[in-house]
Amino acid sequence: MKIGRIIGTVVATRKDERLTGHKLMITQGLDLEGNPEGDAVIAVDTVGAGIGELVIFTEGTAARYAADKPQSPIDAAIIGIIDNIDVYEELLKKRR
Amino acid sequence: MKIGRIIGTVVATRKDERLTGHKLMITQGLDLEGNPEGDAVIAVDTVGAGIGELVIFTEGTAARYAADKPQSPIDAAIIGIIDNIDVYEELLKKRR
Amino acid sequence: MKIGRIIGTVVATRKDERLTGHKLMITQGLDLEGNPEGDAVIAVDTVGAGIGELVIFTEGTAARYAADKPQSPIDAAIIGIIDNIDVYEELLKKRR
Amino acid sequence: MKIGRIIGTVVATRKDERLTGHKLMITQGLDLEGNPEGDAVIAVDTVGAGIGELVIFTEGTAARYAADKPQSPIDAAIIGIIDNIDVYEELLKKRR
Amino acid sequence: MKIGRIIGTVVATRKDERLTGHKLMITQGLDLEGNPEGDAVIAVDTVGAGIGELVIFTEGTAARYAADKPQSPIDAAIIGIIDNIDVYEELLKKRR
Repeated sequence: MKIGRIIGTVVATRKDERLTGHKLMITQGLDLEGNPEGDAVIAVDTVGAGIGELVIFTEGTAARYAADKPQSPIDAAIIGIIDNIDVYEELLKKRR
Repeated sequence: MKIGRIIGTVVATRKDERLTGHKLMITQGLDLEGNPEGDAVIAVDTVGAGIGELVIFTEGTAARYAADKPQSPIDAAIIGIIDNIDVYEELLKKRR
Repeated sequence: MKIGRIIGTVVATRKDERLTGHKLMITQGLDLEGNPEGDAVIAVDTVGAGIGELVIFTEGTAARYAADKPQSPIDAAIIGIIDNIDVYEELLKKRR
Repeated sequence: MKIGRIIGTVVATRKDERLTGHKLMITQGLDLEGNPEGDAVIAVDTVGAGIGELVIFTEGTAARYAADKPQSPIDAAIIGIIDNIDVYEELLKKRR
Repeated sequence: MKIGRIIGTVVATRKDERLTGHKLMITQGLDLEGNPEGDAVIAVDTVGAGIGELVIFTEGTAARYAADKPQSPIDAAIIGIIDNIDVYEELLKKRR
């Protein structure tokens, strides 16, 4: 899973019917400092998350299970709203 | 899923028979400003999209479900034609 | 799927027996100008493609279906020989 | 699988119920010198690993098997605590 | 599949029991000139390969089939020992 922020939405009238009923959220992955990292993805929301929220998102087959639609074209889903992150980056200075 | 634009087509007479009947669309992923991002992919069209259109595309097993061919060699598919995108990039300035 | 060119072969006497009977083709992904893009992969040939040919290749579970060996260690396969590519890169100048 | 270090945790009260009971560990992949490499991921712990430990983590469907939840939204899991790494980087100087 | 060289091993006493009995090989992907490319991975050996050998490795679900453990946390496996590589890089100068 990755840490991301919901920064927008996509509207598509003509689409795979298995997407109907899901909000399509533009979700930007973030690095440990909160800066954008990697491509933004379109993820379906499964937890009632809103624009601006910091979320956990998942990709691939995991996203279809998140949406309870294992045989759908979904490949990214929001699965948690983050309350708190604790990161100890100084641990990265440890040598093997 | 990702945001992309259909920018071309590929013709292959000699190909896996499970690709027959699908238009093979060259689809370029776009970043939030609409600039090319990442490699272009060859995606099968499942929604009647045309060259030049802004679309939603999906990759991996999700693409086989989109094409209703779960046991085919397809790994990318166009699953929606985008009417509108709302992005609030200023949200990325929020700190954790 | 991706556009690639077959640029070589790999020989391995000692290998997973489910690879036996497949030519192992070194396949280099190409960008829209025909320049190398991303890592070269070793793909099994499923369409009788030869060295130097421009091909469509697929990755992941899709490759095992291409080879009709869904329970094999294959993760990349050549599934089409490209006759023609039409790309309209000027479409990328369109704004959202 | 990859080598990583657990450098933090994420708390999410509102989340997919199939994540309940799993510690959500921020895990940073490391290169052969022990420097950060690639995006940090949120991985579920399956071996009792703690913050600061050097671990083996796996991604994709493999992570759901690690957690014994094959139909869950999990896409990354910690599956081993590393006791020792032996690397002979001089082998990379060998030519084909 | 990718071309790589085995450059080390990882020892983990505390690990997912489905990893028991597999050597955990640090495998570095190589480009066409034999230089390191991409992240090193921890792959299980399925063909009796040793440190320093040039190998074929596979990733994702393919790796679990290679190890004959389809429901395990394995996501990378060594599936062949390379005897010979023939590459014709001048083919990349061909234009579409």
